[in-house]
Amino acid sequence: MLDIIEMRRDLHQHPELGFTEFRTASKVVETLQSLGYEVIYGHDAIDGPSRRGLPSEALLEAAYERALAYGANPDIVKAMKGGYTGVVGILRGQQPGPTLAFRFDMDALPIMESTDQEHMPQADGFISQFVGNMHACAHDGHTTIGLGVAEALTKLDVHGTIKLIFQPAEEGVRGAYAMVEKGMLDDVDYLYCAHLGCDVPTGQVHGGTRGYLATTKLAVHFHGVASHAGADPEKGRNALLGAATALLNIHALPRFSSGDTRINVGLLEGGTAANIIAEHARMIVETRSESEETNAELEQRVRRIVEHSAGMHELTYEIEVTGAAIPITCDVELVELANAAAREVEGVHTVPDEYAYSTGSEDASYMIRRVQERGGKATYMIIGASNPAPHHHPRFDIEEDSLRIGVEVFSGIAKRMLSDHAVPVSVLPSAKARVED
Amino acid sequence: MLDIIEMRRDLHQHPELGFTEFRTASKVVETLQSLGYEVIYGHDAIDGPSRRGLPSEALLEAAYERALAYGANPDIVKAMKGGYTGVVGILRGQQPGPTLAFRFDMDALPIMESTDQEHMPQADGFISQFVGNMHACAHDGHTTIGLGVAEALTKLDVHGTIKLIFQPAEEGVRGAYAMVEKGMLDDVDYLYCAHLGCDVPTGQVHGGTRGYLATTKLAVHFHGVASHAGADPEKGRNALLGAATALLNIHALPRFSSGDTRINVGLLEGGTAANIIAEHARMIVETRSESEETNAELEQRVRRIVEHSAGMHELTYEIEVTGAAIPITCDVELVELANAAAREVEGVHTVPDEYAYSTGSEDASYMIRRVQERGGKATYMIIGASNPAPHHHPRFDIEEDSLRIGVEVFSGIAKRMLSDHAVPVSVLPSAKARVED
Amino acid sequence: MLDIIEMRRDLHQHPELGFTEFRTASKVVETLQSLGYEVIYGHDAIDGPSRRGLPSEALLEAAYERALAYGANPDIVKAMKGGYTGVVGILRGQQPGPTLAFRFDMDALPIMESTDQEHMPQADGFISQFVGNMHACAHDGHTTIGLGVAEALTKLDVHGTIKLIFQPAEEGVRGAYAMVEKGMLDDVDYLYCAHLGCDVPTGQVHGGTRGYLATTKLAVHFHGVASHAGADPEKGRNALLGAATALLNIHALPRFSSGDTRINVGLLEGGTAANIIAEHARMIVETRSESEETNAELEQRVRRIVEHSAGMHELTYEIEVTGAAIPITCDVELVELANAAAREVEGVHTVPDEYAYSTGSEDASYMIRRVQERGGKATYMIIGASNPAPHHHPRFDIEEDSLRIGVEVFSGIAKRMLSDHAVPVSVLPSAKARVED
Amino acid sequence: MLDIIEMRRDLHQHPELGFTEFRTASKVVETLQSLGYEVIYGHDAIDGPSRRGLPSEALLEAAYERALAYGANPDIVKAMKGGYTGVVGILRGQQPGPTLAFRFDMDALPIMESTDQEHMPQADGFISQFVGNMHACAHDGHTTIGLGVAEALTKLDVHGTIKLIFQPAEEGVRGAYAMVEKGMLDDVDYLYCAHLGCDVPTGQVHGGTRGYLATTKLAVHFHGVASHAGADPEKGRNALLGAATALLNIHALPRFSSGDTRINVGLLEGGTAANIIAEHARMIVETRSESEETNAELEQRVRRIVEHSAGMHELTYEIEVTGAAIPITCDVELVELANAAAREVEGVHTVPDEYAYSTGSEDASYMIRRVQERGGKATYMIIGASNPAPHHHPRFDIEEDSLRIGVEVFSGIAKRMLSDHAVPVSVLPSAKARVED
Repeated sequence: MLDIIEMRRDLHQHPELGFTEFRTASKVVETLQSLGYEVIYGHDAIDGPSRRGLPSEALLEAAYERALAYGANPDIVKAMKGGYTGVVGILRGQQPGPTLAFRFDMDALPIMESTDQEHMPQADGFISQFVGNMHACAHDGHTTIGLGVAEALTKLDVHGTIKLIFQPAEEGVRGAYAMVEKGMLDDVDYLYCAHLGCDVPTGQVHGGTRGYLATTKLAVHFHGVASHAGADPEKGRNALLGAATALLNIHALPRFSSGDTRINVGLLEGGTAANIIAEHARMIVETRSESEETNAELEQRVRRIVEHSAGMHELTYEIEVTGAAIPITCDVELVELANAAAREVEGVHTVPDEYAYSTGSEDASYMIRRVQERGGKATYMIIGASNPAPHHHPRFDIEEDSLRIGVEVFSGIAKRMLSDHAVPVSVLPSAKARVED
Repeated sequence: MLDIIEMRRDLHQHPELGFTEFRTASKVVETLQSLGYEVIYGHDAIDGPSRRGLPSEALLEAAYERALAYGANPDIVKAMKGGYTGVVGILRGQQPGPTLAFRFDMDALPIMESTDQEHMPQADGFISQFVGNMHACAHDGHTTIGLGVAEALTKLDVHGTIKLIFQPAEEGVRGAYAMVEKGMLDDVDYLYCAHLGCDVPTGQVHGGTRGYLATTKLAVHFHGVASHAGADPEKGRNALLGAATALLNIHALPRFSSGDTRINVGLLEGGTAANIIAEHARMIVETRSESEETNAELEQRVRRIVEHSAGMHELTYEIEVTGAAIPITCDVELVELANAAAREVEGVHTVPDEYAYSTGSEDASYMIRRVQERGGKATYMIIGASNPAPHHHPRFDIEEDSLRIGVEVFSGIAKRMLSDHAVPVSVLPSAKARVED
Repeated sequence: MLDIIEMRRDLHQHPELGFTEFRTASKVVETLQSLGYEVIYGHDAIDGPSRRGLPSEALLEAAYERALAYGANPDIVKAMKGGYTGVVGILRGQQPGPTLAFRFDMDALPIMESTDQEHMPQADGFISQFVGNMHACAHDGHTTIGLGVAEALTKLDVHGTIKLIFQPAEEGVRGAYAMVEKGMLDDVDYLYCAHLGCDVPTGQVHGGTRGYLATTKLAVHFHGVASHAGADPEKGRNALLGAATALLNIHALPRFSSGDTRINVGLLEGGTAANIIAEHARMIVETRSESEETNAELEQRVRRIVEHSAGMHELTYEIEVTGAAIPITCDVELVELANAAAREVEGVHTVPDEYAYSTGSEDASYMIRRVQERGGKATYMIIGASNPAPHHHPRFDIEEDSLRIGVEVFSGIAKRMLSDHAVPVSVLPSAKARVED
Repeated sequence: MLDIIEMRRDLHQHPELGFTEFRTASKVVETLQSLGYEVIYGHDAIDGPSRRGLPSEALLEAAYERALAYGANPDIVKAMKGGYTGVVGILRGQQPGPTLAFRFDMDALPIMESTDQEHMPQADGFISQFVGNMHACAHDGHTTIGLGVAEALTKLDVHGTIKLIFQPAEEGVRGAYAMVEKGMLDDVDYLYCAHLGCDVPTGQVHGGTRGYLATTKLAVHFHGVASHAGADPEKGRNALLGAATALLNIHALPRFSSGDTRINVGLLEGGTAANIIAEHARMIVETRSESEETNAELEQRVRRIVEHSAGMHELTYEIEVTGAAIPITCDVELVELANAAAREVEGVHTVPDEYAYSTGSEDASYMIRRVQERGGKATYMIIGASNPAPHHHPRFDIEEDSLRIGVEVFSGIAKRMLSDHAVPVSVLPSAKARVED
């Protein structure tokens, strides 16, 4: 039987960045296969061109080699080469019924983990072995819960179908879209996603959330002409003048009466030396908005500013979308069902009726929308997990009892929806019916 | 006989801005006709579309009415209606010979003249009657000299042809080009232009100058969309954001290794009220450069910045050239001849070999280039005139003896070039010969 | 008896801008005195230094003379000279009771009124005689209602005291503060303010409003050093470079997570000519925020940007607050009482429980806060008045039956609060008691 | 006897960046000592605090260890630890006479050397062993010439004193100033500096140069406050907004009528991620001017813009001078003497009277000024050396016969000035006399 504490600590020691989760995904595939799941992964689970913010070839290759060195199964992982690190496990019941999907994310962050003795992973000896990377956002826990749920569901007499979706590259909101575009969500009737922590303590669960903003992340490259700043200043085409103009004007974009927006140029770098007119510059920009429409408008305005900041100084430019997410609307039926399931889990003492609130962004939003567009229902839950330090902090950690709670919440949901005595699901057409439309 | 002091004081009392010199030009025509000159003026002397920085219809009309009220000859001035205020007087000799042209400018400035008792025009009662306008750049003197020369030359047995060119709108470098484009300089073999003052005291004369920069003056208009800054900020298209971006980036244009340049946005105005996103903005820009090529490149860069500052904020824009000049290269033969003539004038005590130096701009440059392009020669002289205050200052004035000196320098030049015993001019083909080529 | 239609039309013909309401205020004083009110006005009603955005001396003087020419009472209006155009009428009851205040604003806008025959003031012959000014925001109606109420209340057996406050310069949120600072609100227990129109049709009344934003209007002046852009560019200190830098950076101020904000540089003008480095520049800026604290922070940030945009280019600067307002919180007790009064007025068919919503700004907010700070209660009502065109539009007008409704709503409120059978007001201490604390 | 080809090739293989010339300087000390020179080096030759643009501790340490590994003399080099890599060799004559100094620079560039077979150092096997560094500006040749001269002078009967000055960190104009401030030039009567190449072919020599611009190189650091761009944008203090504002305004600094200037922000980098308000930013700036005064004014203006761009956004900042140079004025007496000496060297076929012209910058300028300030004379020569590629290019190289020519030019100068039959030097007071003043 799966030891979820051990599993989480193993993953914690081997944190892999988005689209390089070769070892993690290999472990997921192995575990699901060993439990009897039908498993889709690699190119079958991911639409290559839809991946956003893909790392460089060199980084992909290095991470692949490292994964092999640290125990990834060569037969499995070869299908993931080049950044195809999504996995879907399918459990088909004997009885007819709807398709219920659970989604888990697997990637880590480029953060140097704390070596303070007060930091439990250090004290208990399971600190990151991949120095400079860290599971500082609980995705090690998410993946672990996914595998724990996989095991628990094998004991259930499923009426319908279970899909366990393990996605790469949630950080930077990059990976979910490529699994959606591959069709992984097209037959799903009900989708449950969740995050551990998020300022909610262990023992509290929210069956739904609100507030997630639409966002786009853009990488902008300006290309000009270098020249000697003393001898030939007029022969240069100054990429930094273009970038600085863009930066100021992007920040000066108007507030919108249609709802909250955010805008940030988070990084700018260009030029090489005091005496050279800068030939190249690079900017990282993000927009956020309450609505997808406003965010599209904001992104369009950013693009226009980049275009003309470049044109003004005779630069060329490229804009790359490195990440994106949309708002989330949770379906009240699933929220209530999740709350009901959570209330029965041991150790869960607080399940408020109110949705959790966050102004962050989540690319699970694409999965949720795909399901809802096709007539299904979805929600995004918060499963409490007390943290000694905030998310993305070098001393972030999760109280490990939250893992068990997570497994039981998801399992409880499945039981209520797909078991013999499940709540009636006739309110929804079956996935088949919908697909045939 | 013409009293040049009286004439200058009459003109000083009636200062007219560029393209509205209706009364002044009318007096010039009357005087030239009374002296027996063939006179070209109005539409015959000016190419309408080539005028730069033309005042509004309303201003042209008001100045026209004022000129009539203050003694302009209605029969003459009607040909100048709408801003056709150039005059050319022609004196054809009995004997063959080259065509010699002298150029004078007639316009005043929008400056409120000083009423200090120390200011001689005030003390002696000939201060500007057109309040707000002032002859603060000695063009009243220039026009007077032109008429004084006209009279003096009638006593000369001319071998060849004399052309006296009175141009409008030198301020802002706007008027000369329209007379050039009308062909007024096409048959000229030798051209002499001059300025009084320019930090050179009475009694000193320079037969040539150097340093005049090429320049372009541009009026830029940005058009956006107004909206309420509180209720609908995103519905506006902010003309001031475009203009401010243009202003900063125009000033940030690079220095040129090819020679000195200057750049200035001298005026910016836009918007109406605190709570309205600015719909319109207007900028006045000038470029200056040692060479015409560099100036053309600078102007092109300004235009590009305007285009993209507008595009960046979804504005439309127009750019109008309101003035322009090119560098001046004086022909040494004419410089030396002018110096020789000046040295014979009573009251002239200093005639240096060195050219006078100025970093200003002059639209006589277009006349000079047209003459030189067609094989002729030209120069631009400085005739000293002590000033109590700098050019364009409310207490600017000229020592009036400089008027007589000016008349005698020009007359002396004509004598040396076109009289019976003139210096040989065979070095140059006659205008006719050139035109027939 | 007062003919409110005639009164409104008289005021409409004589629209006076903020702090120049000499004729209007004179009429108000005359009327109140004729009705037996004790009247405070001029320096007794206005704290001079607290006036914001005061017009120039010349404008104040010209408007004063015009008022005299158009029927202002010289004995009254002399106390208002220089912009002291506030009036308070007091009616003291025979019986003890609280102090109830109603507030009305009197100023007009610098808008050219439409002469379309479809525009009723034109068709019926009461168009603005002060060309260029217009009552395009219904303050003529507000003042008329105030006088109508004054008359109606004389028939009431008042238990307590009535204060009718007529304020200058609401446009630009400039005048209320100076009456507050003079102490005019210090003894008020209950305050009712109102606006006609605001997209609410005749026959509908809202006893309360929400949404009014805190705002500050700033006039910024930059002073540099002029120099010739060709000869001495480095000797100038360029006011336009400072202003353009400020404009971009002000617009680039961050959005606030604490609530909605707005920012706008609505006007920028500086410089004089192409060839002069700009010596002066002027900007008009406004900030708006959901909370007073955030607005104070935004204003502080604007000031910091101005300070350093100036310092960067060696400019000096001044910042003048030309207007300000704070948010409004209506007291539910007064809202409900106003709604009850409104429901009894003939012609009022709709009185929703919901507050009216506006994202505008109102300087009655200062009066409301002063009353609430001292333990009193206040509200801001909307009295419907159908308009053929939006507020501040050249064809703005009000359906005149709204005037009668307005008079009756206010009178009904007074009746309910101060008459013999008034609702108990013991919930509030009397003003006296409060002042003695 | 010293093989100068071998010496140059050894230095070429071991290129060391500014202030890390440990191996190079060690070789110089060893050679000078072996020739009998009195040698000053380490802390005795360099004023620590006057060094500009010092590398990091880590880099200094790593370069020191590398030097030891590659043959630096441990006993010598320990005195240079931490970047004290200047050397002065002194040869005192038996006879009285003036002090004559020659200056040579030793540092290399951070350029990856070409491995093309056409590149002679590659073909002949003496390519850089310190990969990423390269002698691409001929300083390996300069140092070699210095040592060749050292050997040659030992055969001379010196009347007076010879000082051979080997300076670190000429690239970035950083090192000379620290030797000047240590007083190394204070007793020098005559100073000759030189550069190989500079577009002058082998066989041509210029005894003087003109055109070198004053320059300052600045590193600017902005420090703000990071915050989450979605959750708390207003809590950040955006270092990139400050830096972009500075960049635009620095480029917008005015042209100077007092002479040519240049300005460049050659590098800007700041921020870390799309969703974080940038906490830090760094800029590299340079100014250049024909005169030291104008350059000081330009630097002052850059500093002011940085100060206020920081203040505007509540940032702190530091500005570090990482390099500086001043203009060079060559003394005609030394130029002529150098030309005379050059004309006698075999292989020198062209010695024009005109000075060589360059718009670069040189920190030998500080040495030259110190000598001239104290009554001495100085010049900066160009010794031709044909190059297959421009300076600072990966395929830069020098024709090696220029080394012999260099040695003979310097030796010839010494012979003419300090030998028995030297030209009279009585025109100058001796260094001693001057110091006693």
